[in-house]
Amino acid sequence: MTATPKWDTIAILGVGLIGGSIGLALRQRGLCRRIVGVGRRTSTLTAARRHGAIDAATTQIARGVGEAQLVVVCTPVEQVVGHVLEVMAHCPADTLITDVGSTKSSIVHGVESAVANARANGQALQGRFVGSHPMAGSEKKGVRYASAELFVGRAVIVTPGPTTLPRDVATIERFWRALGGRVTQQLPEAHDAAVAAISHLPHLLASALAAMSPKEHLPLAAGGWRDTTRIAGGDAELWRQILLDNRHEVLKSLANFTTMLEQFRTALEQGDSPALSRLLELGKKIRDAVGN
Amino acid sequence: MTATPKWDTIAILGVGLIGGSIGLALRQRGLCRRIVGVGRRTSTLTAARRHGAIDAATTQIARGVGEAQLVVVCTPVEQVVGHVLEVMAHCPADTLITDVGSTKSSIVHGVESAVANARANGQALQGRFVGSHPMAGSEKKGVRYASAELFVGRAVIVTPGPTTLPRDVATIERFWRALGGRVTQQLPEAHDAAVAAISHLPHLLASALAAMSPKEHLPLAAGGWRDTTRIAGGDAELWRQILLDNRHEVLKSLANFTTMLEQFRTALEQGDSPALSRLLELGKKIRDAVGN
Repeated sequence: MTATPKWDTIAILGVGLIGGSIGLALRQRGLCRRIVGVGRRTSTLTAARRHGAIDAATTQIARGVGEAQLVVVCTPVEQVVGHVLEVMAHCPADTLITDVGSTKSSIVHGVESAVANARANGQALQGRFVGSHPMAGSEKKGVRYASAELFVGRAVIVTPGPTTLPRDVATIERFWRALGGRVTQQLPEAHDAAVAAISHLPHLLASALAAMSPKEHLPLAAGGWRDTTRIAGGDAELWRQILLDNRHEVLKSLANFTTMLEQFRTALEQGDSPALSRLLELGKKIRDAVGN
Repeated sequence: MTATPKWDTIAILGVGLIGGSIGLALRQRGLCRRIVGVGRRTSTLTAARRHGAIDAATTQIARGVGEAQLVVVCTPVEQVVGHVLEVMAHCPADTLITDVGSTKSSIVHGVESAVANARANGQALQGRFVGSHPMAGSEKKGVRYASAELFVGRAVIVTPGPTTLPRDVATIERFWRALGGRVTQQLPEAHDAAVAAISHLPHLLASALAAMSPKEHLPLAAGGWRDTTRIAGGDAELWRQILLDNRHEVLKSLANFTTMLEQFRTALEQGDSPALSRLLELGKKIRDAVGN
């Protein structure tokens, strides 16, 4: 067991479902003296305060991160690199910055090269970035669905880049463990391949199934259709960004899926009962191994 | 409102999740004086009795249906026609027989032609059949997951064939309404096309997704993967029968799905952000319209 870190000030950029859940978990577990929420809209910040997810709020990154030991960037993937850079322009020298983006190669390498460029241009940047991806979410959106238990038992992947310091990785890992996460480490590229198969492809399939379901038959939708398509109700803009950002890996996973689907189709077309049995048993075996 | 039918004796063939839930619902709602469970294995029948799903049990169809006004055949789709015929060889003259199979054309027309053949051969058959399909189920199996509330608010499709009497259809509709179902009527062929799209295709996709998910990435499976693949944990043999029996319609739905999936793939390959947005929004709109 690693000792639970005690934080003085943590800033959370973006206090929706994930950011709000981080705030709630930090407060309920007494891990942090002061949590500052940073967001674009005061209405969101007010809601986060009312839910007890943050202690203070500001719409200005510069003001929000000035005393933070740790900044957690919880904004959509396309904005993460820009936000990390903005945090670095205003945070103390030793601040650690992490994020919660569902893609990691573009973010980790994007931050590294943006920092190198900025420094080459003489810009003063402080703090250090370590990418993370807590695999917890929901088709729901907003701080009102936030939960202090969101990360308990959930996989959190920390993705060091070539210049990341091992002690910073260790600190970020302790942070997620303190929130209840099951932390593993992966290279950004390995992460992106893994989540393409286990998260991004399922989203794409759920969305395609919902999109092609004939309207006149929807009144018949029972538990099977509802479960299979549930994540299609997720925020379309967030998922557009994720799928496009990770499209090379998603396309590889989709090709693998298409090959498997082709086996099901052939078995059906040929009325091949043993082949269909084998495929259904394989799916069941893998599904049963994961549980609920 | 139609008056709730009061039954004297109802026999249930196959007391698993569905048959057991019918028994529990009938008893808890006080709709029937005596429920007889008929099954192959005494262990299953004993469990059904212990759960309060049936009053009496027998492994012999002939004995189980001798006094039944209504017989509900809850066996796997490939066995329904044979079981209906066996019931007809032993039940009283006015007995109504229905089933709960997920496919209807082969069952409804199978019963009609089997009855015609048997009568042409001078076999004495009694009772009349009306096909039904309650769209309630689970990836769980067995009477221990049965629930008196399983049919509440769920779609139940009653599928009259060319020779079905309207008053028999009305009686079977009242039966399902009394258990809480939302009853609609469809021709067997229309039913099979509808459930191919809204139930059988989702099962096939969930199974294919589970079957192709790389084992090494399963520890990362979060809510999305779990929801999307949940029904892949269903009984493989039951689903083999359903998918094969309805394969022509399932293949049509699969072709429609493949066309939609191709649009997602093209949008990703071309990095076409507006097209991907439109597709994700379409999926979300349809999913949101159904709710949870």
